[in-house]
Amino acid sequence: MKKIKIGLLGLGTVGTGVYKLIRMRSDVMERTIGAQLEIKKILVHNKNKKREGVDESLLTDNWKDILEDEEIQIVIEVIGGIEPAKTMILEALKAGKNVVSANKDLIAEEGRELLDTAQEYGKDFLFEAAVAGGIPIIRPLKQCLAGNEITDVLGIVNGTTNYILTKMFEEGMEFEDALRQAQKLGYAEADPTADVEGLDAGRKVAIMASIAFHSRVVFSDVYTEGITKITAADIAYAKEFDSVIKLLGVARNTESGIEVGVYPVMLPKDHPLASVRESFNAVFIHGDAVDDAMFYGRGAGEMPTASAVVGDVIDVARDLAYDCTGRISCTCYRQIPVKDFGEIENKFFLRMQVKNRPGVLAQIAQVFGGHKVSIARVVQKNVHLEKAELVIVTERVKERHMKDATEELKNMDSIYEISSVIREY
Amino acid sequence: MKKIKIGLLGLGTVGTGVYKLIRMRSDVMERTIGAQLEIKKILVHNKNKKREGVDESLLTDNWKDILEDEEIQIVIEVIGGIEPAKTMILEALKAGKNVVSANKDLIAEEGRELLDTAQEYGKDFLFEAAVAGGIPIIRPLKQCLAGNEITDVLGIVNGTTNYILTKMFEEGMEFEDALRQAQKLGYAEADPTADVEGLDAGRKVAIMASIAFHSRVVFSDVYTEGITKITAADIAYAKEFDSVIKLLGVARNTESGIEVGVYPVMLPKDHPLASVRESFNAVFIHGDAVDDAMFYGRGAGEMPTASAVVGDVIDVARDLAYDCTGRISCTCYRQIPVKDFGEIENKFFLRMQVKNRPGVLAQIAQVFGGHKVSIARVVQKNVHLEKAELVIVTERVKERHMKDATEELKNMDSIYEISSVIREY
Repeated sequence: MKKIKIGLLGLGTVGTGVYKLIRMRSDVMERTIGAQLEIKKILVHNKNKKREGVDESLLTDNWKDILEDEEIQIVIEVIGGIEPAKTMILEALKAGKNVVSANKDLIAEEGRELLDTAQEYGKDFLFEAAVAGGIPIIRPLKQCLAGNEITDVLGIVNGTTNYILTKMFEEGMEFEDALRQAQKLGYAEADPTADVEGLDAGRKVAIMASIAFHSRVVFSDVYTEGITKITAADIAYAKEFDSVIKLLGVARNTESGIEVGVYPVMLPKDHPLASVRESFNAVFIHGDAVDDAMFYGRGAGEMPTASAVVGDVIDVARDLAYDCTGRISCTCYRQIPVKDFGEIENKFFLRMQVKNRPGVLAQIAQVFGGHKVSIARVVQKNVHLEKAELVIVTERVKERHMKDATEELKNMDSIYEISSVIREY
Repeated sequence: MKKIKIGLLGLGTVGTGVYKLIRMRSDVMERTIGAQLEIKKILVHNKNKKREGVDESLLTDNWKDILEDEEIQIVIEVIGGIEPAKTMILEALKAGKNVVSANKDLIAEEGRELLDTAQEYGKDFLFEAAVAGGIPIIRPLKQCLAGNEITDVLGIVNGTTNYILTKMFEEGMEFEDALRQAQKLGYAEADPTADVEGLDAGRKVAIMASIAFHSRVVFSDVYTEGITKITAADIAYAKEFDSVIKLLGVARNTESGIEVGVYPVMLPKDHPLASVRESFNAVFIHGDAVDDAMFYGRGAGEMPTASAVVGDVIDVARDLAYDCTGRISCTCYRQIPVKDFGEIENKFFLRMQVKNRPGVLAQIAQVFGGHKVSIARVVQKNVHLEKAELVIVTERVKERHMKDATEELKNMDSIYEISSVIREY
């Protein structure tokens, strides 16, 4: 019986899931792809650590054991981070091995070099698991929707923040309490910065934008803003406006360039992304032929991520059987500039605490007018003797104009505080 | 410059969309797949019919013109129906051409023969457009999720009925009024039978079940029940129960065999399928590794369907470039029996008009008990002097037991009418 031998780099959460899933499916694979999948070696940092349910004879702490093993045709990289993952992937490709990776950090930074190397050596480099975990998104974009000009990619691609925002919305919790609950349940890490500040989502949106628009977008192109400033009061307003607040990765291909950012958005309740709850992820796209489409599922976790990795491994195995590795490589054949974020237009929701006296609204309106910001709606609430809460929703205005206007407002005597600035869909 | 020549069979709505989209994308294809796509000939019934925007020199009414043209490497079949589509596809494959089809009727009946022939001749036979129009679902199931044992496939795969049910739910319309509106807007045909009776959805669910469970399911295996009996009163109860009513294609792979059917279902509002509105489609799946996932988008229409067809064509073009056509063929390597529908267990919502007098409920409960139907909930409403409305929700019971119980209830003196029997999720 034919066997396809695999080297697994890393045995953390995802690596363990991949190990389990490949063993579970080893037999049926023979019938789907005509070969058994066999993990021959596993690269770990510490060979002596006790690992439940893992065949210890497969473990090695020497990368060369895998790189120089000519039987190994597929390398699965689930170490994460830039180095040593990058060097290992490049060496594996150059040694004639195909590579499957779940490494969003690396691909969002160095995807081009990895894909170019794979193409040069005629090998597969697949990374479905790097974006939105188990949800099929890379292959749909590269293959199923290849006949489209994709103009919009909107994604809830971070489960931690979606869990927190769901708790805030459904149970009226404040951010800090929801975060603590997420940490208790293992949805958030002890240091939650990468999640709650939108960095994790930013890496994923860079990868999706590159593939959707056929033009390289890297993480440093992505404006990121997290959810730490969102309060229960903002959520209450969102409800009043028949909306929800979601942390969205937003990428648009416009006539003046690519717009790309991650930030909280007030989204109408009937938008398909609005009903994505708990730690689920979803990616919404718009293409000129397909119209709107959305892909929903588990964006992280041991087995969902393993599902995406093993799907890629099976695809490589089919390419090996048909001698066509390298069949789908880099599809970034364009060079579209990424727009300066200040030039992007958005609608804004502003909530501020102001002095309760005549003429304040006129002053504020004048500041906005001076910065070319048109006001669509004003609501005054929570009026007290000295203080009132003012909510202003703008028309679509340039980010830089909005920023200048809020800077000026902050310095006004009649404004105690600008409590929140949230973009509207 | 390399050109890949295509023969297009049929120039109806989908055919015209495919023609337009391939021409729109002809140039960029050179950069993604290294070849231009060119429609060389189009098979039509009537060559002399006036067709806006179509190069008339491509039209032919003679199938042999395409079959015997050795330059044509890809045949796109968008005629629909069993014959002559089946014969043409088989002849094309045997003549060494690859085939892309959007023909759900044919694939739901004869998929095995077509796929086996493609495999025998080492050619691609792809049909992403045959299920859920523009939504990527076949390729995600066959590739991205190939590492999973899929246990559940639930689909809203008919836009006409979803539009009608949305109008009934959101605007309180009766079925007939919503149908008329759908017909006026072109969402429903003059003879809406195939849509409203669940036949169209039944074909799609047969195809999806086959792929998801790796075992052939044909249309005649699928129990179908439409939405013509759903009333505004049922919808009002659904709202009261925090649910919606959707026409679902349901396929499950259980230890005792495959369960497959199409019928209206009361679905809790927080299920991802519940928020699929208007004529949109969505397919929800559960796999042992990926957990829950859902694919949402346009299930029909000229350009969304063309999007799926052209995605397949581009995939064939890549296989041609790498000399690996036939790379993914039939994946039905199992033979799992399809269960008799009577043996399937479901929960039921029953609404009935009964005589308003003591002892009636006891009589009804006795009938249910005699047929092994456990009652979970009883609500009495709209009580008049002579008549009352009784709503009963059952526990999970066998379809045949439920059928026997309702037959007996129908003949009871104290029951005027069984107004509706709807399955609950």
